[in-house]
Amino acid sequence: MGRKVAVVLADHFEDVEFTKPADALKEAGHDVVVIGVEAGKELTGKQGEAKIKTDLSIADAKPDEYDALLIPGGFSPDLLREDERFLDFVKAFDQDKRPVFAICHGPQLMINAKVVEGRNMTGYKSIRIDMENAGVRFEDKEVVVDGNYVTSRQPDDIPAFNKEMLAQL
Amino acid sequence: MGRKVAVVLADHFEDVEFTKPADALKEAGHDVVVIGVEAGKELTGKQGEAKIKTDLSIADAKPDEYDALLIPGGFSPDLLREDERFLDFVKAFDQDKRPVFAICHGPQLMINAKVVEGRNMTGYKSIRIDMENAGVRFEDKEVVVDGNYVTSRQPDDIPAFNKEMLAQL
Repeated sequence: MGRKVAVVLADHFEDVEFTKPADALKEAGHDVVVIGVEAGKELTGKQGEAKIKTDLSIADAKPDEYDALLIPGGFSPDLLREDERFLDFVKAFDQDKRPVFAICHGPQLMINAKVVEGRNMTGYKSIRIDMENAGVRFEDKEVVVDGNYVTSRQPDDIPAFNKEMLAQL
Repeated sequence: MGRKVAVVLADHFEDVEFTKPADALKEAGHDVVVIGVEAGKELTGKQGEAKIKTDLSIADAKPDEYDALLIPGGFSPDLLREDERFLDFVKAFDQDKRPVFAICHGPQLMINAKVVEGRNMTGYKSIRIDMENAGVRFEDKEVVVDGNYVTSRQPDDIPAFNKEMLAQL
């Protein structure tokens, strides 16, 4: 049976870090719900290739309704992490140990949600120091699985990321 | 006598965080040299308003030739901090206690250069946790001066930032 996966997204996301995992989820029969600051808003990736309309506003999003959370990278996570509602949304997945999939700059949102201390994770090289300072055991690998967390470094890692993401659902 | 100020810049800088401080420096009789990955490359601000041509490549930039360093915010500092040469450039200013002016996301570059521990600073709210985890004594004020460091939070703070920046030169 298909699962319901929340994706949190803002402008300047890394295009393929949304499109390729979202396509893989849909092809496997799962539902993808895009949650942004506003519902029905078109967001543009930082490469200008992907234009994605949000399904739901964070104001109306209930974390209990989702089986897993996907956090694409680019500059989107840094924009989302200034909004306390996205931090609460991420925390809810951590509390119930539901799967969280984060790639590239995705872990920035998890740092601000304070759900990374003592976890084995990877992420984009520029934020490695921020992850380590927040207590992450950083591994420079294409994909790191630690319980309910699946993390990857960059677009090149997407095949490995998608494989481990689907294995959690 | 005018001083020579290096500005490190990449695409997606916060437009006014370059243009307004750079204008203030030039009006006060100082020279502004824009240093990027490549020389003679046009960089575009994230608002699409400012298009700035770099004067010099980081490959040819000698930190000893400058009296001070300016780091505008936006997503530019996160792009610069993945390049070790910009980290070395920042470290050189810290070692000689020459002035460093950073606004908004500018401190991200200083975190990766490992020159922030124990310093009183401010920065954009989304990176506050990264600054604190790196050992910064964060102050939520329009401008914080700690010895040779002048830092501000966001575009609204530019008048206070410019005033303290000019006072250091």
